[in-house]
Amino acid sequence: MARVVAVDDAADPRLADFRDLARADRRPDRPGGRGLVLAEGTVVVRRLLASPYPPRALLGVARRIEDLAPDLRGADVPADLTAYVTDADTMAHVVGFHLNRGVLASADRAPSPEPAALLAGARRVALLEGVNDHENLGALFRNAAALGVDAVLVGTGCADPLYRRSVRVSMGHVLRVPFAACGLGPAVTALRHAGFTLAALTPGGDPSALAALASHERLALVLGAEGPGLSDEALAAADVRVRIPMADDVDSLNVATAAAVAFHATGVPR
Amino acid sequence: MARVVAVDDAADPRLADFRDLARADRRPDRPGGRGLVLAEGTVVVRRLLASPYPPRALLGVARRIEDLAPDLRGADVPADLTAYVTDADTMAHVVGFHLNRGVLASADRAPSPEPAALLAGARRVALLEGVNDHENLGALFRNAAALGVDAVLVGTGCADPLYRRSVRVSMGHVLRVPFAACGLGPAVTALRHAGFTLAALTPGGDPSALAALASHERLALVLGAEGPGLSDEALAAADVRVRIPMADDVDSLNVATAAAVAFHATGVPR
Repeated sequence: MARVVAVDDAADPRLADFRDLARADRRPDRPGGRGLVLAEGTVVVRRLLASPYPPRALLGVARRIEDLAPDLRGADVPADLTAYVTDADTMAHVVGFHLNRGVLASADRAPSPEPAALLAGARRVALLEGVNDHENLGALFRNAAALGVDAVLVGTGCADPLYRRSVRVSMGHVLRVPFAACGLGPAVTALRHAGFTLAALTPGGDPSALAALASHERLALVLGAEGPGLSDEALAAADVRVRIPMADDVDSLNVATAAAVAFHATGVPR
Repeated sequence: MARVVAVDDAADPRLADFRDLARADRRPDRPGGRGLVLAEGTVVVRRLLASPYPPRALLGVARRIEDLAPDLRGADVPADLTAYVTDADTMAHVVGFHLNRGVLASADRAPSPEPAALLAGARRVALLEGVNDHENLGALFRNAAALGVDAVLVGTGCADPLYRRSVRVSMGHVLRVPFAACGLGPAVTALRHAGFTLAALTPGGDPSALAALASHERLALVLGAEGPGLSDEALAAADVRVRIPMADDVDSLNVATAAAVAFHATGVPR
C-alpha cells in the first residue's frame, strides 16, 4: 500500500523524477545512460504498477490518484512508494507543460532478460531491426500485445522501447510484453536453438506464403523499418521471406501496421 | 505543361494558397466552408497531380520542382498551372513554419461522387462512422489503398479526409481512393442495392467469422472509432458482426490498424 502525500510547491525536491520532462527524456545520470521509465495517464500508470519495473513515485491530481487507489493497494506495490497529490497548475510547473492525462508514475529500468529465457514459453515472437521511430515502436508493441505476440527481440538500430513517447503510444503495453535488446547474431542463435521458424517480412517476399506460417508451432517474424527494410544479414538468416499482398502502386504500409497484419495472419489459432 | 516562375517576395499575392497554413486549414471563404486541398512533399504532390482534384498552384524549392518536372509535363496538367520556385527561407515565411518536405501544391475540391456511382465497379468497400481523428482517417486511407479497398463511404461524425493532416498521413492516398461523404441511411441503401454484404467490426462480434468474409463477392466493412464504437443503427444495419481475435486483457487496436487487419483478412484473393 503506497502512501499519498499532498504537495503544493512545484520546487519540492521529491518531485525530481517528473521535472522538466520534455528535456529530461534522456537522463545520462541514470544507469545505462538512459532515462527513467515514465507512465502517463491512469491506464498506463496501472500497467506500470503491474509491470516488472520497480515503481519510484507517482504525481497526479486528486481525482486521478483516487482512480488508482485500488492499484496502489496491490500486494506487489512497495509500502514506501509515494503518490504525490497536487493541482493541475503545480503539476504543469513541475513537468514543464500541461499534461492533460493528470497523472504520472516513474519507475526504474529492470535488467533485460536473456533471449533464451524470453523464448522459453513463447510461440509467437517478433525480431525487430532498425525500427528507430519511437511512435512506430510503441504502436508495434501495442499491436503485439493485442494480437498474441509473446515476446519481442529488439535488434540493431531500434529505438528505445522505454522512451516516454514509446510507452505512451504503446498504451503501456511495452511494459507488459517481454522484450530483450539483442544483436542480430545472438537473436538468431537463440531463436534457432528454441526451435523457431524465422520469417522475414520484406517487399521481395512471397505474398502467398504468409497465411501458411500460421501452422508453425514456433514462429518469429523478422521486421525492419519501412524505408530501408531488413539488412542482407537479416534476410539471409530467415528461413522464408514473405510479404503482405499489396496493390501494385502502393509502396508499403507503416511498419507497426504491417506487423499487425502479419501478427494476425500468422497467429496461434484461439 | 505547367509554367515555372521564380518568386523572391514572401508577400507575393500569387502565393495566397500557401500563406499561413497552420491557421488556414479551414478556409470559410472556400466553397462548402472547407479549405483547399494541400499536398506536401514530392510523393504527395505527384499523387495530387494524378488525382481528380483540379490543381491551382505549386510552391517549392528548385530541387523539388525539378524532381516534379516529368509530372508537370503530364498531358492532364493544365497549361496555365504555375509552379512557383523560391528558397527555403522565403517558403517558410509564406507558410508560417519551416516545411522540410520542400514543396507544396494546392487544388480545388471536386464534387463528391454519388454513392451508387462509387460502388458500381467496387468489390471491397469501407463504411466509416465517427472516425473523427484526422491522422487515423489518413492512415486508414493509406491502408485502404495498399490492401485493395476500392472505395470509402465517409459516414456520420467522420473528420474531413481532405484536411491537410489527413492528406499527409495518408501519403496522398486519400487523393486516389474514391470516397463519398454520406449519411448512414443512404450508404446502407446504396450498398444493399449494389449487392454488398455489410460486416460490422465490433468488440461484440464473432472472432471466428472474419476470415470467412473473404469469400463474399462484394463486401463492405463497417468501421467505427475505437472509443465509442459503432452506433446501434450501424450495428443493426449490418448482416454480420465480426471482431479481430485479440488477447483478453487488451481493449482494442487503433482504428486504422484494425481496418488494415480486416482489409487483409477479407481481401479479394490476388
